[in-house]
Amino acid sequence: MTLTPADPAFVSRLNRVLPEGVLCEVEPRYLEEPRGRYHGQAGVLALPQNTEQVAVLVREANAARVPVVPYGGGTGLVGGQVNVEGPSPLLISMERMNAVRAVYPQENVLVAEAGAILADVQAAAEEAGRLFPLSLASEGSAQIGGNLSTNAGGVNVLRYGNTRELCLGLEAVLPNGEIWNGLSRLRKDNTGYDLRGLLIGAEGTLGVITAAALKLSPNPAERGTAMLVVQSPEAALALLSLARDQLGEGVSAFELIHRQGLEFLNEKLPQLRQPFAERPEWCVLVELGLSRGSDPEMALAELFEAAMEAGYVLDGVIAQSEGQRQELWNVREQIPEANRLIGSVSSHDISVPLSAIPDFIVRGGEVLAALGDYRVNCFGHLGDGNLHYNVFPAHGKSREAYEDQRAAVKRAVHDLVHEMGGSISAEHGVGRMKVEDVARYGDPVRLAAMRAIKQALDPNGIMNPGAVLAV
Amino acid sequence: MTLTPADPAFVSRLNRVLPEGVLCEVEPRYLEEPRGRYHGQAGVLALPQNTEQVAVLVREANAARVPVVPYGGGTGLVGGQVNVEGPSPLLISMERMNAVRAVYPQENVLVAEAGAILADVQAAAEEAGRLFPLSLASEGSAQIGGNLSTNAGGVNVLRYGNTRELCLGLEAVLPNGEIWNGLSRLRKDNTGYDLRGLLIGAEGTLGVITAAALKLSPNPAERGTAMLVVQSPEAALALLSLARDQLGEGVSAFELIHRQGLEFLNEKLPQLRQPFAERPEWCVLVELGLSRGSDPEMALAELFEAAMEAGYVLDGVIAQSEGQRQELWNVREQIPEANRLIGSVSSHDISVPLSAIPDFIVRGGEVLAALGDYRVNCFGHLGDGNLHYNVFPAHGKSREAYEDQRAAVKRAVHDLVHEMGGSISAEHGVGRMKVEDVARYGDPVRLAAMRAIKQALDPNGIMNPGAVLAV
Repeated sequence: MTLTPADPAFVSRLNRVLPEGVLCEVEPRYLEEPRGRYHGQAGVLALPQNTEQVAVLVREANAARVPVVPYGGGTGLVGGQVNVEGPSPLLISMERMNAVRAVYPQENVLVAEAGAILADVQAAAEEAGRLFPLSLASEGSAQIGGNLSTNAGGVNVLRYGNTRELCLGLEAVLPNGEIWNGLSRLRKDNTGYDLRGLLIGAEGTLGVITAAALKLSPNPAERGTAMLVVQSPEAALALLSLARDQLGEGVSAFELIHRQGLEFLNEKLPQLRQPFAERPEWCVLVELGLSRGSDPEMALAELFEAAMEAGYVLDGVIAQSEGQRQELWNVREQIPEANRLIGSVSSHDISVPLSAIPDFIVRGGEVLAALGDYRVNCFGHLGDGNLHYNVFPAHGKSREAYEDQRAAVKRAVHDLVHEMGGSISAEHGVGRMKVEDVARYGDPVRLAAMRAIKQALDPNGIMNPGAVLAV
Repeated sequence: MTLTPADPAFVSRLNRVLPEGVLCEVEPRYLEEPRGRYHGQAGVLALPQNTEQVAVLVREANAARVPVVPYGGGTGLVGGQVNVEGPSPLLISMERMNAVRAVYPQENVLVAEAGAILADVQAAAEEAGRLFPLSLASEGSAQIGGNLSTNAGGVNVLRYGNTRELCLGLEAVLPNGEIWNGLSRLRKDNTGYDLRGLLIGAEGTLGVITAAALKLSPNPAERGTAMLVVQSPEAALALLSLARDQLGEGVSAFELIHRQGLEFLNEKLPQLRQPFAERPEWCVLVELGLSRGSDPEMALAELFEAAMEAGYVLDGVIAQSEGQRQELWNVREQIPEANRLIGSVSSHDISVPLSAIPDFIVRGGEVLAALGDYRVNCFGHLGDGNLHYNVFPAHGKSREAYEDQRAAVKRAVHDLVHEMGGSISAEHGVGRMKVEDVARYGDPVRLAAMRAIKQALDPNGIMNPGAVLAV
């Protein structure tokens, strides 16, 4: 398939079929991404106001073989939102389609347009006395359409699942420009193939998601948070088992933190209060969300005691107020910012089977030691087997000194993850950054099926070319 | 695409590449289905012992263009397991591949082969101190592979989701005979299209599922069950909201029962003890599963009291022992058997948006009254918006007298469901029974995408032809 650029002829064709104001000048922010690794090529920017306009845009692009790049909040970390090569694309930013169309508290359903900011969706659910549990660092600017397209993870996956599990139905424009009206609010609907699940996580390569029916949950009436110092990663896993035995789904988040992260915080964000005078080697942040009448502080105290007795836990703090809860969460949530200020050699969003985590951490350290002198900040969503395994220069050395080692570090970490049955992209997606990794590590039968599906739904290859699958 | 029958030449080709004993004579039970609506045509039966043999079978069938019908426990209610027309097929029964390959209690994961009986999977989880929450009437003979292929529902969907949400990874043989090794135990893996979700619910039309990595849950330490008489379906929904506000995910099941069902039980299974001397118009079965140290009887008593005060509930019983719990569940679980003994004119496995249920029940009654004299037993998984809306002859009349009205009844009910944004197959799937309905009511853009996907993955159309999509 040969693509053609979004040239003036294409623009004037679009102008003939669209109202004034839909096409806009491409501001630089649409061509950048948070880590500055990719710079997109300028093209034509469209800001559609409704689904019909999205359909017109995609239909015209498909007819003219112009590449289409769907654009959400721009917070993706793997370059899925920036087109770096090939003919100049049509960018479709969903920012004007940001309405929460309806909330059905009795059904625990909310229908939002793709451009709605995640935090606004959360707030609309909250207002109806419900919880939309997707929660991640960039929720103030990430859009729900992007969250869906990348099957975003975050801190509540342990309890509520990934974004795919939080979506009942979709409205989307397929690559041929046709609108799929799939905004089902049903919990059970077995009438054919799961097109919803297929578009979620396809990173815009199979169509443009324009709206979604999202699953809400009862809002846990009582929340509690603790930070517990654990013996080791093994002990952290044993603590997780203990917590789930005692509290079932009441465990909403279970985050692993390594001393390196606390040291980075201390170095770069010294004003941030840390809970332990002596920074522990490993600790976990445990969040409970319990039903009315429960006492999460008491539950955490009982867990703490049992875990001390079992020898899993050495020390800990249980938040006694909302302010203290926020302080504990701040520690966890500011680690990525501290990482950014230090500057990593290579960052890895990986997952391994839960029981393989302790072994992975040991072997990861050995693999890196064989390559050179590094600091590793390994932290993240332990409850999901999802670690952010980020590799930094040795103390006093600059990131630039490691420029030529980045590829080797990444390769070594990913080789190990793959060998241990893990994933080289746990929650951020493939984007453009990991296309080669997916081709290298992916099951060849699955990859062939993916290519067949892509070819079937997007025979001209217009949708986000270069993302997920190599062109 | 032209298919060819599984003729002697094909059989001798299979015999050359497979060990003795894999091909067997087709016993009649493989050609029947529970409701006796379809009778399959005989063909060749294979009982593979491992995934490689399944791959050989499918590869040969694909090369020879012989139709393949995957066969699980044979409990499907929509004829997905019986091939009624076209060239005689190769039946692949998964019954010998019934191992639970591994249990990972710490990871809350269990890996089972497709032929494992659902009850055996539940038992293996239980033995490891965990819960595999999929639960349905036929669990003693249904196989997990069939549950996956049909994305089975059941009584615990409200809390734990459908089968698709209970599966982390699959091993499957695709229509070209290649093995996809996708037995991931990861909670987070965003490396491309959701092939897992696509095969689940495809009813054997996109490949043969051979094994699955299943998600286990903490076993709720304390269970409680109550049967509460509600004012109306509206009141039942209000009670559900109240219960979830008070108890969050602790509400495991919420089943609606109508007087008609209790009367059928009384008529056909009079030895079964019913909880209320006077059979109520509407009641609900509420099941709680709470964490250790909780008191579900107390929680149910509080719920009962609050619901009485609010006027939702008129009467009720709370089980005081495991025996009483079983008695209450028996009432719910024997309703399908009583239905069978009465003999329905037409049964409908439907769902509508939760808040539309009361209106649907009223309008359904009106629609049927306009058609003739019927008894309606409307019951099921209210928490999921999933009703079994089954239509029976008037008292004293025989099913046969209604033979010529069946199509009109079904059409009227499905038209109404569709108009109200519901699904004409909530949990049983499409099979062969609802192919026309899916074509009639399905979104045309989605149907076209489904056909494109089918064509891409199974270009010769060998996999379960006639199921889900019209040939």
